[in-house]
Amino acid sequence: MHVTILGGGGFLGRKLAARLARDGALGGRAVSGLTLFDLNAPAAPDGAPFPVRCLAGDIAAPAALENAIPEGTDVVFHLAAVVSAAAEADFALGMRVNLDGTRNLVERCIGLSRPPRVVFTSSVASFSGGQAAVLPDDARQVPANSYGAQKAMGELLLSDASRKRFLDAVNIRLPTVIVRPGRPNKAASSFFSAILREPLLGLETDLPVGDDFGVWVCSPRQAVEWFLHAATMDTGPLGLDRGINPPGLRATVGKMLAALRAVGGEEAASRVRRTPDPAIEAIVSGWPAAFTAERARRLGFPEQEGLEAVVRAFVEDDLAATRAERGL
Amino acid sequence: MHVTILGGGGFLGRKLAARLARDGALGGRAVSGLTLFDLNAPAAPDGAPFPVRCLAGDIAAPAALENAIPEGTDVVFHLAAVVSAAAEADFALGMRVNLDGTRNLVERCIGLSRPPRVVFTSSVASFSGGQAAVLPDDARQVPANSYGAQKAMGELLLSDASRKRFLDAVNIRLPTVIVRPGRPNKAASSFFSAILREPLLGLETDLPVGDDFGVWVCSPRQAVEWFLHAATMDTGPLGLDRGINPPGLRATVGKMLAALRAVGGEEAASRVRRTPDPAIEAIVSGWPAAFTAERARRLGFPEQEGLEAVVRAFVEDDLAATRAERGL
Repeated sequence: MHVTILGGGGFLGRKLAARLARDGALGGRAVSGLTLFDLNAPAAPDGAPFPVRCLAGDIAAPAALENAIPEGTDVVFHLAAVVSAAAEADFALGMRVNLDGTRNLVERCIGLSRPPRVVFTSSVASFSGGQAAVLPDDARQVPANSYGAQKAMGELLLSDASRKRFLDAVNIRLPTVIVRPGRPNKAASSFFSAILREPLLGLETDLPVGDDFGVWVCSPRQAVEWFLHAATMDTGPLGLDRGINPPGLRATVGKMLAALRAVGGEEAASRVRRTPDPAIEAIVSGWPAAFTAERARRLGFPEQEGLEAVVRAFVEDDLAATRAERGL
Repeated sequence: MHVTILGGGGFLGRKLAARLARDGALGGRAVSGLTLFDLNAPAAPDGAPFPVRCLAGDIAAPAALENAIPEGTDVVFHLAAVVSAAAEADFALGMRVNLDGTRNLVERCIGLSRPPRVVFTSSVASFSGGQAAVLPDDARQVPANSYGAQKAMGELLLSDASRKRFLDAVNIRLPTVIVRPGRPNKAASSFFSAILREPLLGLETDLPVGDDFGVWVCSPRQAVEWFLHAATMDTGPLGLDRGINPPGLRATVGKMLAALRAVGGEEAASRVRRTPDPAIEAIVSGWPAAFTAERARRLGFPEQEGLEAVVRAFVEDDLAATRAERGL
């Protein structure tokens, strides 16, 4: 089967490509070819037992995807996006990449002789809710940011394109992904990863909210598991509603710090400085902190592993590379 | 205040323009100018006490709205759309007019020095549900047709643009509008108007569903009342959620025929032929037949008048013109 990853250079795209290279197969069928597409040509994963094409392009440009999604493509992972802080700062850029990019994908699929499976990363940012919320599977998406609005629009488009049999989409609303490798960034959610990553790198970091603050999380490993399941599941039971709230984990900051302590010791935990920041708290307080995720469980999406395993996975998969990348 | 009607040549646009011409004011403020925009230049309403500009243009073309929405515009009624059957038959056309058109509106508003009020006609077609459904105000939009999907996308875009203060939107999900003037068309919903209009014109018509079939309806008069309220209401209480399920009426076909009998007599009612059509019933059965509409009532949207008044309004407002237009 031929697979394309749009946004193949991002941190989840790279992990997904590495996993496909390691498995050599997807859902029991051998992968015959992989295309990675991003603004800059992504690096091919090590040791892939199939040919890998690495393409650079602008997903929002007309005809950009003709080459990236060749005739005969079986699965497209659509992970390409302008992230939340950037989409909020530059409305036109977010619309262009997050909406036009998804529309270009639909246009390309209309041109194919066989509708490919499309796995789209939507986001919890497409919901409102807050700390007390436990959102059911039929919760209405009322986004409080342009990124979430663009993701919700993309879901509607891909669901309609599925109904029209242009493609066959599964839209996964990803939780806050921890632990992100790399550096802290300006996203309001940056601290959720930073309070685990930075101490393990030997660095101090700020915690802007209280220990009982709740957040709906998943690990990069778990996200990849969900992508693989979504790529091969029977989509018949989805009907018109192609959106999936996957079974993430309702964590609290306090439990995250306990997991840090268990893996990195008291020394690591002591590098977290409690520096309340009402501006950051105001933003992240609007995000729903839990979902029932009953439908996803019924549809076979695997459960998020516990927080200690999440921290250990970061140590195993990303700590050394992050240390090297940041010259530490 | 300056007002623009996009889709000013459609049957609701013409009624709205005529109402503004009659009132000379909107929400207690004098109308200083009206711009009507449509694919073909609409006719100006009779006797308007303010200048009326009648413009032809393609709402989806870049910069099409520069002239249609001049600097200083206070209210834009965005009624322009490719309707359900056409959007289903031609996906690209629906996307172009229903989504790109709305996006062009947002782009134009970004270019204005003051965000105008935007009243957008969304649709019950953006929901699923069916005969047994009574949809609450926070019901999730799971459209079963491209028109509904495009309207729901437009709502998300206009809500986000409101949050960003590019404009100030109220998105009204219109019920099935009865009695539409003009001719029967290929829309699956065409019969809801035809069973009232055709008999009053002296013509026979087919009823494809049973007498107990339920449908959520409003009259053209009521739709115009809602537009005027949405144009002048305080949008503060709407918060992030700019969508309104207005207080329509849950009618049944049997009650509609009783109203026809009350207004047009037994002779008119006898012109309705009961000719069950499972294909049409299958389509319209997917539409929600009732809404709680509690939020709209709280926000001052007036209640739909009863079915007999709806039929009498058609006789008063549209029967003679429809007869003339169709050469009857």
